[in-house]
Amino acid sequence: MFSTTLSLSDRGLHYGDGLFETMAVMAGQVRLLPRHLHRLAHGAARLAIPLPDLSALEAALQEAAQALGEGVLKLIVTRGSGGRGYAPPEDAEPMLILLRYPQKLPRPDDAQAGIVLRLCTLRLARQPVLAGMKHLNRLEYVLARAEWREPEIAEGLLLDTQDELIEAVTSNIFLVQAGRLRTPCLDQCGVAGVMRAEVLACAERLGLEVEEGRLHLDDVLAADEVFLTNSLHVMRPVRALHGYREWVGGTLVPRLQQTLWSAL
Amino acid sequence: MFSTTLSLSDRGLHYGDGLFETMAVMAGQVRLLPRHLHRLAHGAARLAIPLPDLSALEAALQEAAQALGEGVLKLIVTRGSGGRGYAPPEDAEPMLILLRYPQKLPRPDDAQAGIVLRLCTLRLARQPVLAGMKHLNRLEYVLARAEWREPEIAEGLLLDTQDELIEAVTSNIFLVQAGRLRTPCLDQCGVAGVMRAEVLACAERLGLEVEEGRLHLDDVLAADEVFLTNSLHVMRPVRALHGYREWVGGTLVPRLQQTLWSAL
Repeated sequence: MFSTTLSLSDRGLHYGDGLFETMAVMAGQVRLLPRHLHRLAHGAARLAIPLPDLSALEAALQEAAQALGEGVLKLIVTRGSGGRGYAPPEDAEPMLILLRYPQKLPRPDDAQAGIVLRLCTLRLARQPVLAGMKHLNRLEYVLARAEWREPEIAEGLLLDTQDELIEAVTSNIFLVQAGRLRTPCLDQCGVAGVMRAEVLACAERLGLEVEEGRLHLDDVLAADEVFLTNSLHVMRPVRALHGYREWVGGTLVPRLQQTLWSAL
Repeated sequence: MFSTTLSLSDRGLHYGDGLFETMAVMAGQVRLLPRHLHRLAHGAARLAIPLPDLSALEAALQEAAQALGEGVLKLIVTRGSGGRGYAPPEDAEPMLILLRYPQKLPRPDDAQAGIVLRLCTLRLARQPVLAGMKHLNRLEYVLARAEWREPEIAEGLLLDTQDELIEAVTSNIFLVQAGRLRTPCLDQCGVAGVMRAEVLACAERLGLEVEEGRLHLDDVLAADEVFLTNSLHVMRPVRALHGYREWVGGTLVPRLQQTLWSAL
């Protein structure tokens, strides 16, 4: 199922012609595996990359998770090898690569103190055709992440070229305002995270009002509480946007955090 | 100098974190090699990817060209391997890959009849930070090229998300209007081709007026002559934009073509 070498003519290398999933593994289980597979299938359909049988892939990932115990699995799916040129070959054989990173993952208590963000200078380009997808064209994120080295800054906030709020470099962002959850819609750029989807589902179960909309930096600054989500950290409250604002003592975030963790 | 294998943790694969050059080789020589090296160095500086000594690279490329005789050399430079995560490692060792494609290259006469273009549906995203660079994030071009399979369509015209004219999928575009050359400026998106630079230099030598500006589809349709440039085809007159317009019998394009070829 998974290749252990990569052809030098692979289109993942030449064009970033592929997708990836970064999955948390705890106690030998892939967290939110159905959501990861769903997003992968959706992205592959948008790029017209044929996937192998999803239940076989699911079984192979579960087997890898059992062997790993705790850590991160990164699955890369490329369109495979082709001749020179952008045209996707009709008979392309997709290539699946699985990288295994044993490591201790964050626990709920680790995020209690909250994290510090900075505002990135880089603005994300607006490209509806690729928006939301976890594809392999990630240079913008490399450049955004290269903007800082201070270890006390955990994440960088990303706006797009029209100054709309999108996400953070490796996380999605949620705002709490008057008891309501707000998160950027991702129809122009950004990655639609699986934990973002899980938080939206969780908020619905809790009966919270949720808005996916066009937000801006001002909305962040006006928020009562701010938090980030991703597969590995689950949910991290934000205690400061460096140079802009600090937040203390929210109530909705701890509640959501508890509900979210207990469902994982 | 050149690697023959690629680590599965290479950032070229994971993020498209790198650059490439596609070079024409004729009679054992790389065409426009100084321009290719200049663009590579400029892109590497923008991405902060350290390059090996350029004169050593030049010698290695010349040696490969001599061995190839005629065909295409594709050089890929990635930031190399790193741990998981977008942050570029401080000690990254760049990876150079050279692919050799023996093939007969087009001669001046091959393009006389002119080619047919289509207008692509895909619109390029505007990202000034990456504009002009020949980086490895090329999914937009894969999707644009996947829009057609008809062999009689040689190229696809690309506008950006604000409907500005940018380029074609694998070429730059020039318009001739009232004896003047016009070509899109590439400060928002697109690839600044080495043959584009050569044509601009050639036009200057011929005393032609040249405008790099913000152009639109209407400017294409109003042009007296239209041509495309790239490393492999050098210069191709356009005889039709499918569904929009045809062109016949220009005079400036043949003159430019002759001057250009004689300088290569």
